[in-house]
Amino acid sequence: MAEDLWKKEYDFAVAVARKAGAVIREAGEKEIKVCTKSSTVDLVTKTDERVEKIIIGSLKEEFGEGTHCFIGEESVAKGEPCILTDKPTWIIDPVDGTTNFVHGFPFVAVSIAFAVNKELEFGVVYSCLEDKMYKARRGKGAFCDDDRITVSDVEEIKKSIIISEHGTDRSPEKVKKIFSTMQKILCIPVHGLRGSGTAATNMCLVACGAVEAFFEIGIHCWDIAAGAVIVKEAGGILLDVDGGPFDLMSRRMVSANNKKIADRIIKEIEIFPAERDDAPIQKK
Amino acid sequence: MAEDLWKKEYDFAVAVARKAGAVIREAGEKEIKVCTKSSTVDLVTKTDERVEKIIIGSLKEEFGEGTHCFIGEESVAKGEPCILTDKPTWIIDPVDGTTNFVHGFPFVAVSIAFAVNKELEFGVVYSCLEDKMYKARRGKGAFCDDDRITVSDVEEIKKSIIISEHGTDRSPEKVKKIFSTMQKILCIPVHGLRGSGTAATNMCLVACGAVEAFFEIGIHCWDIAAGAVIVKEAGGILLDVDGGPFDLMSRRMVSANNKKIADRIIKEIEIFPAERDDAPIQKK
Repeated sequence: MAEDLWKKEYDFAVAVARKAGAVIREAGEKEIKVCTKSSTVDLVTKTDERVEKIIIGSLKEEFGEGTHCFIGEESVAKGEPCILTDKPTWIIDPVDGTTNFVHGFPFVAVSIAFAVNKELEFGVVYSCLEDKMYKARRGKGAFCDDDRITVSDVEEIKKSIIISEHGTDRSPEKVKKIFSTMQKILCIPVHGLRGSGTAATNMCLVACGAVEAFFEIGIHCWDIAAGAVIVKEAGGILLDVDGGPFDLMSRRMVSANNKKIADRIIKEIEIFPAERDDAPIQKK
Repeated sequence: MAEDLWKKEYDFAVAVARKAGAVIREAGEKEIKVCTKSSTVDLVTKTDERVEKIIIGSLKEEFGEGTHCFIGEESVAKGEPCILTDKPTWIIDPVDGTTNFVHGFPFVAVSIAFAVNKELEFGVVYSCLEDKMYKARRGKGAFCDDDRITVSDVEEIKKSIIISEHGTDRSPEKVKKIFSTMQKILCIPVHGLRGSGTAATNMCLVACGAVEAFFEIGIHCWDIAAGAVIVKEAGGILLDVDGGPFDLMSRRMVSANNKKIADRIIKEIEIFPAERDDAPIQKK
């Protein structure tokens, strides 16, 4: 029986992600009203909030309000805490790739992860415009729809494609470091640099072997929690951008097909500060 | 009758592009043997050559060898001339996004354009992993599958997504200018920068309104000829990177939803030299 622990939660997460993705697709076909969150480049739409309510509402209804905790992008934006405890905790990004969503750029993902005792038990990423369901349970492999997926077996950095993002922060010092890092990696040289505009999808592209690595500073736990399980179960690894152990709340991550590729990327990354997701909330 | 001029060629191009795309998809599932063209980052596979032979072979069989001319990426790589004359001319990229293809990154396109009297009459871009057929005839609108497509109506640069590519040339001076341009555009600021890894697909993303502009120096006529018709027919514009008129053979291009967005991008582009596609061939 122990091997099917959290199976019910996992199956439910897949179903909820699919439902949420359908809502997103439908909303994309209608007029999208955009309002400003932290800046003009960090878009949030009514859809984000609506989809998060649908997901959290469904989970609470199914599993009870008291026993499970929830960390959701929109809830945190409204001031709810972002602390991972030992309690069963859902970590949710209702619409990863909001900018893509607003523009109709074809990568938009629903990301749902589940952690117990601070360990990630499963992750589900539904790339809803492509209609691809990426999913993985700890110890049970990673899948895209019904197909088992594995990371690329490329060991030579010069034969790799690397993914990163420019992020939404436009402060000159950060932007300078981001571009400097990308330029150095391109000139190793690698086959190419890409960016889908969603961290969750980027991690799935690592997991299915389309790219060798994805790194970013400034991502949030809800962007990468589900992808982290999927990458690991596909045979990949996760590290901090300084080569230390991966920390879900640190907002820094390298995910790669193997340690050799990860280490080579890490040599080039110019680190800049990013406040932890679980830093004490500033009173407003 | 005049209005259906080149209709037969157009319909045939759509069918051939679909057939070629199926060959590419099938090949992608098998082992891919990679050999070096000009550098380790400019990949060419047996598939490129095979698909170009299929396309040009089919066209010659249908329309006769003598009356039509052909400019194909792989033929030019083997030393055939790349000159646009007044004769009916097919301009073909059998696999745009070879690096993506080799890695299984989800954007790979077949690009087929047709010019008469040096004017582009139609363009077909089949994004074969997504299974999306973009197509346009001069004066008759642009389509994705059966749906009419139009460019974005965004006029404010700060609300735009801009696409560009790093290219395959890793010479330090070019790379420096490419990154400098991207950094300046990001910090206008814009909503984001993207890159699919194929120029043909990038142009279709402009045409269907998912992004506002795509610019690149170093692209070839076969990468952009079909996309050029599709962007124009979707209501967009094409310019040289210095703001002058678009020249298919110049290897420089800005495609955008409107002139306001194009002009703003052009202000930031740091131009570097690229030898014209129709420059005299060097004897080897």
